[in-house]
Amino acid sequence: MRHLVRFASASRERSPSDHFLNTNSQPMPLLVVGSVAFDSVQTPTAKRENVLGGSAVFFSYAASYFTSVRLVGVVGEDWPAEHTQLLQARKIDTAGLQVVPGKETFRWSGKYLPNMNDRETLEVHLNVFGEFDPVLPDDYRHAKYVFLANGSPKVQLKVLEQCTGAHLAVADTMDLWIETEHDELMELLTRIDGLVLNDSEAKLLTQDENLVSAGQKVREMGPKFVVIKKGEHGAMFFSEYETYVLPAYPTPDVVDPTGAGDSFAGGMMGYLAEKDNFEPTTLKEALAYGILVASFNVEDFSLDRMQRIEREDLEKRMRDYRQMLSF
Amino acid sequence: MRHLVRFASASRERSPSDHFLNTNSQPMPLLVVGSVAFDSVQTPTAKRENVLGGSAVFFSYAASYFTSVRLVGVVGEDWPAEHTQLLQARKIDTAGLQVVPGKETFRWSGKYLPNMNDRETLEVHLNVFGEFDPVLPDDYRHAKYVFLANGSPKVQLKVLEQCTGAHLAVADTMDLWIETEHDELMELLTRIDGLVLNDSEAKLLTQDENLVSAGQKVREMGPKFVVIKKGEHGAMFFSEYETYVLPAYPTPDVVDPTGAGDSFAGGMMGYLAEKDNFEPTTLKEALAYGILVASFNVEDFSLDRMQRIEREDLEKRMRDYRQMLSF
Repeated sequence: MRHLVRFASASRERSPSDHFLNTNSQPMPLLVVGSVAFDSVQTPTAKRENVLGGSAVFFSYAASYFTSVRLVGVVGEDWPAEHTQLLQARKIDTAGLQVVPGKETFRWSGKYLPNMNDRETLEVHLNVFGEFDPVLPDDYRHAKYVFLANGSPKVQLKVLEQCTGAHLAVADTMDLWIETEHDELMELLTRIDGLVLNDSEAKLLTQDENLVSAGQKVREMGPKFVVIKKGEHGAMFFSEYETYVLPAYPTPDVVDPTGAGDSFAGGMMGYLAEKDNFEPTTLKEALAYGILVASFNVEDFSLDRMQRIEREDLEKRMRDYRQMLSF
Repeated sequence: MRHLVRFASASRERSPSDHFLNTNSQPMPLLVVGSVAFDSVQTPTAKRENVLGGSAVFFSYAASYFTSVRLVGVVGEDWPAEHTQLLQARKIDTAGLQVVPGKETFRWSGKYLPNMNDRETLEVHLNVFGEFDPVLPDDYRHAKYVFLANGSPKVQLKVLEQCTGAHLAVADTMDLWIETEHDELMELLTRIDGLVLNDSEAKLLTQDENLVSAGQKVREMGPKFVVIKKGEHGAMFFSEYETYVLPAYPTPDVVDPTGAGDSFAGGMMGYLAEKDNFEPTTLKEALAYGILVASFNVEDFSLDRMQRIEREDLEKRMRDYRQMLSF
């Protein structure tokens, strides 16, 4: 809050007249590149088979409450048209969703422990996602707001190189890449503006058990800001000038946490793209919107809860959330 | 925030003219009954042997920033006079601290896991605390603000019966009592105004893994309000009308978490006694003060960090905390 943070990545085009703060309030389109999947989920009380999932799907749907979204992903020929229609109905541009004939869509299955925070992955079939080598449509390359959903840092770097117009590039990562593509991940961290990762990943990446110092260490690896997702405990933000934490919205109805982190990132990036600025006050509001979108997402399987809410539901919960944090 | 909550326990004296809201701002004395101990603490990077500890000690010291405190506890003849002087220097009334000749003081030793949140108890020597049967000095019986620190619910009930002037009686508990004195604990819950417990204890008591619904269930067991302490993740509040969560103050300097929960309760109760009211807005402020006092306490062993701070340090951190939560 004390300083304006100006993000600039020398490797990407930016005209001298680019403004840090947007003075007109036209939402900017938001580009996301990531997985599109069929999820099979078991919780202590229920299960769902082959429901719509994937990081880019949860992200896109969450972001679509704030701005138009361009989704880049890949699916097999088993992908039903109604899933595409569901996304398009929220004005998500699926021109970048490639369908590969003769192949199957990425499948993930997992089982949540009774605490609903920890989970065990039962099966992963990468299928067509295993060879995902995204080539952005020409008109996607100028997107100002870019999110590289969880995926191989090698692929994330290749996408970033195509994003010649990015003003704000943010990535997610996971323990697998920290362990298997460490060098590429470290290279990525010097090239992006923001990184979103969860608490155990931040500890793994820094070998530091204190989340406050872990977050600061990740930021020193390159990104201008870092967000640590803490699941039911909210999220922490780190920049050169600020460290803060916001709690999760307390919901008793946690049905399925799958996609909560991607929904969080979608809400956050969607709000930034809507406002078309990323000054500290906007970033904090964006973090709060991310938390609230995620709080809805966990209230049912897949996108089921999200399909039943409108922007006004988010605004209502935001009023409750602000009230909760004011004293 | 929507309703004023009026706490009334029929079993305790209260004149018809008692006001829920205090109009004069005279701080009320605060009574605490609990353990006084020598702690031996190991963390991943340091250790301390036989330092000043115990729930009533951490509580009293934390509360002393806000109001005068009357401490009731018991020690052996190995208790050094300088410990008593340390407490008295902060205007903690130790008239209720009984010294039993020929006996030893309660000793606890524990070891923290690398995450600094979980710990293993290595040794417990109850010594003189094992026969603790507190008899309150006459002038303590009229205390309006009472805290029953963690201890046997049987003993807590006996103390409560002596607190004929209590307007706000709050208790702490732990897993041991949930398992071994369940009936007495359930009786206690119908007699107190507030309960403070940690997250794993709330889950154990309710057999519910969702903290939001667990907190609501504990409240339905009797107390007018329940506070769940989440360690590094802050604290949750539950009343009939409100559920909210406040995050911990993000400190990178966690040296020793011992006494954090008791310091939290001391800060909370101390602020309520200072304000002499427990309306919803005061309770939320009290929760925040509890969080901030605890955030100082963990920054060194025993009371070492607390001895280096004044009320103004708390107020400064409170300004940062309010800033952190405003957007």
